[in-house]
Amino acid sequence: MKEKDLKEKIRNIPNWPKKGIIFRDITPLLKDKKYLKDVVDEMAEPYEDKDIKTVVGIDARGFLFASAIAYKLGAGVVLIRKKGKLPYKTINREYSLEYASNTLEIHDDSINKGEKVLLVDDLLATGGSMEATVHLVEKLGGKIEGITFLVELIDLRGREKFKQYPIHSLIKFKEDER
Amino acid sequence: MKEKDLKEKIRNIPNWPKKGIIFRDITPLLKDKKYLKDVVDEMAEPYEDKDIKTVVGIDARGFLFASAIAYKLGAGVVLIRKKGKLPYKTINREYSLEYASNTLEIHDDSINKGEKVLLVDDLLATGGSMEATVHLVEKLGGKIEGITFLVELIDLRGREKFKQYPIHSLIKFKEDER
Repeated sequence: MKEKDLKEKIRNIPNWPKKGIIFRDITPLLKDKKYLKDVVDEMAEPYEDKDIKTVVGIDARGFLFASAIAYKLGAGVVLIRKKGKLPYKTINREYSLEYASNTLEIHDDSINKGEKVLLVDDLLATGGSMEATVHLVEKLGGKIEGITFLVELIDLRGREKFKQYPIHSLIKFKEDER
Repeated sequence: MKEKDLKEKIRNIPNWPKKGIIFRDITPLLKDKKYLKDVVDEMAEPYEDKDIKTVVGIDARGFLFASAIAYKLGAGVVLIRKKGKLPYKTINREYSLEYASNTLEIHDDSINKGEKVLLVDDLLATGGSMEATVHLVEKLGGKIEGITFLVELIDLRGREKFKQYPIHSLIKFKEDER
């Protein structure tokens, strides 16, 4: 599907979650069966011949894409969660937000050494949460075969944090684009 | 797959999130590609000929099953989220937990009147969050064709809240079962 058509299914919400930000609401796209199928297929497509064993999804919207992509690729899914949500032994990584910080966790037995992994989230902004995810997955010995996003906010240049990996996004927005 | 085999992929975590509770950790099952594929297929199976238009998933673990089931059934996915997470106009419903309450929300334009809907979550305990979900979906005019869970804690009798709907779970645990 063309990027232009996908963009028409994204709802722009001005001044959310705060003034000056245009939030890119993906729920109208998820709701449409044709679009849901298309974006899952397109997000998975560059990694179909990469023998991906595990798809890692980031809490919570990343889960929506990670499990469907895993189902399509014939892989398993592993969760990156906000602190305190995983019940077994974890390792964690803090990352900075504009005026705060957040901590992400992964179960310490969830990735095997050398295992081929695809990382998935809905949106790439500054890349803080994905950078923490890369750190956690590599600490467990995972081999990152790629990173895939539905939406990328290109002005924030999060992509520069991931130069050494194949990285892929379907919909690219400029900051003030309507 | 047999329930006994599925149970072996669930990790029992005693005294989490608090003393006296055995938490049923589904992450080892999600991690295994054979099991992930099997449970998505089995959760979807009773609803394959029901012309489901929309699969509704509950934040956050419900998302893991909802999107893969929607992908399989050729449906769209709609999100039930914790309060404050959805950016557009919402309706909400409070429900009680043992010593607290929680509020769930849905976008008010996310379900069309008469639309056939399947509700999905990972686990049925007392059924509070699913009962709030039923309320919200019906308030928007959705026609609930079924409710599907991976795990059901049968001693808590949540199922009794949903007698008027086809309801389905793959793995049934007694409270103290190991």
